[in-house]
Amino acid sequence: MITISAFQWVPPFAQGVVRDLRVRWALEEAGLPYQVRLIDPQVQASSEYRALQPFGQVPIYQEGNLTLFESGAIVHHIASRSEVLLPTDEEGKARATMWMFAALNSIEIYFQNLAEIDFFYPGQEWGKQHRPDVVKMIQTRLGELATCLGSREYLEDRFTAGDLLMSTVLRILRHTDLLDGYPTLKAYKARCEARPAFQRALASQMEPFQQRQA
Amino acid sequence: MITISAFQWVPPFAQGVVRDLRVRWALEEAGLPYQVRLIDPQVQASSEYRALQPFGQVPIYQEGNLTLFESGAIVHHIASRSEVLLPTDEEGKARATMWMFAALNSIEIYFQNLAEIDFFYPGQEWGKQHRPDVVKMIQTRLGELATCLGSREYLEDRFTAGDLLMSTVLRILRHTDLLDGYPTLKAYKARCEARPAFQRALASQMEPFQQRQA
Repeated sequence: MITISAFQWVPPFAQGVVRDLRVRWALEEAGLPYQVRLIDPQVQASSEYRALQPFGQVPIYQEGNLTLFESGAIVHHIASRSEVLLPTDEEGKARATMWMFAALNSIEIYFQNLAEIDFFYPGQEWGKQHRPDVVKMIQTRLGELATCLGSREYLEDRFTAGDLLMSTVLRILRHTDLLDGYPTLKAYKARCEARPAFQRALASQMEPFQQRQA
Repeated sequence: MITISAFQWVPPFAQGVVRDLRVRWALEEAGLPYQVRLIDPQVQASSEYRALQPFGQVPIYQEGNLTLFESGAIVHHIASRSEVLLPTDEEGKARATMWMFAALNSIEIYFQNLAEIDFFYPGQEWGKQHRPDVVKMIQTRLGELATCLGSREYLEDRFTAGDLLMSTVLRILRHTDLLDGYPTLKAYKARCEARPAFQRALASQMEPFQQRQA
């Protein structure tokens, strides 16, 4: 049985964007059953957990003797077992993998910088000064991505793990109106999120948070 | 024949760390011959180049009908063709891929933030205020990575594409003395860079820069 780790609770700004969402979604798309180990900050900081995840993050993925961390790598591992997420021809596989790296290394880094300023350093003078540069860089990347997507449904000629990661990355901007300037990207994100597998993944991440708030 | 793109010239702070270095290194390890298309800022901004690379970066990788961008994805594609870079068993492959994503998504992002402050916004007030936070985060990550590496030679039980990316990421700190606090990481980086394939890759990236400076 596959086991993934996830947080028992996170503040509202993080609910629905914690990175186990990506892994849950990939598992739902691939039709692989899994169980969740919900962890609290104490477990997260423990040497037992750190031995599995050097940076103390979620999720980890465990199956038999294999333990993996890094949501991108876990999604890639799951995707390599399912044609729903990754084409089987070498070129299609390479292109889909390209979009996975692009989402995390050319797009997410700027979104994370904005989220950091807005959620982790609110009201700081340096954040106020630097925020316009970050927003400008994000707009540049969104414009480039929109041009590249054009009028297509997905980044390649079909849904892949690249779209899965890219659309979860776009979710990081949800506390802003930045995506409104790019209607084709907004529609693309909605198209990805309309997939039943995404809806199941989101519901399963949100469930323990909602229970605790109830 | 494989063709990659690279810059004809970059400022000294970027020489030896531009991302085509990673791809050249992977090609050298895999023993795959390649040619380089050196580009200038005009080509980089052209619609012809942008059609191949939506973000206008280097390198792109072209082979037959396949065009790829994102250095991480290109290295992964090359690695999937060579046992020198990626184990052939599924678990070994997944673990090496994990380190590739870890290097780019859990480590490089903080190093890039520091490089941005030091090279792109020198003297800015916000940079001066925020720099200590960034340095602290980098030290946290370096400490975690050093713990994880322990006394081993490589991140897994042999050299993989994960070490290739991680060691090129560690190069980003070369304008600082941050790595001096982590002697095992410094030795690890030196061990990776001692590989003849790395030396050939570095020499080939530096060649056009040195010609122009001569």
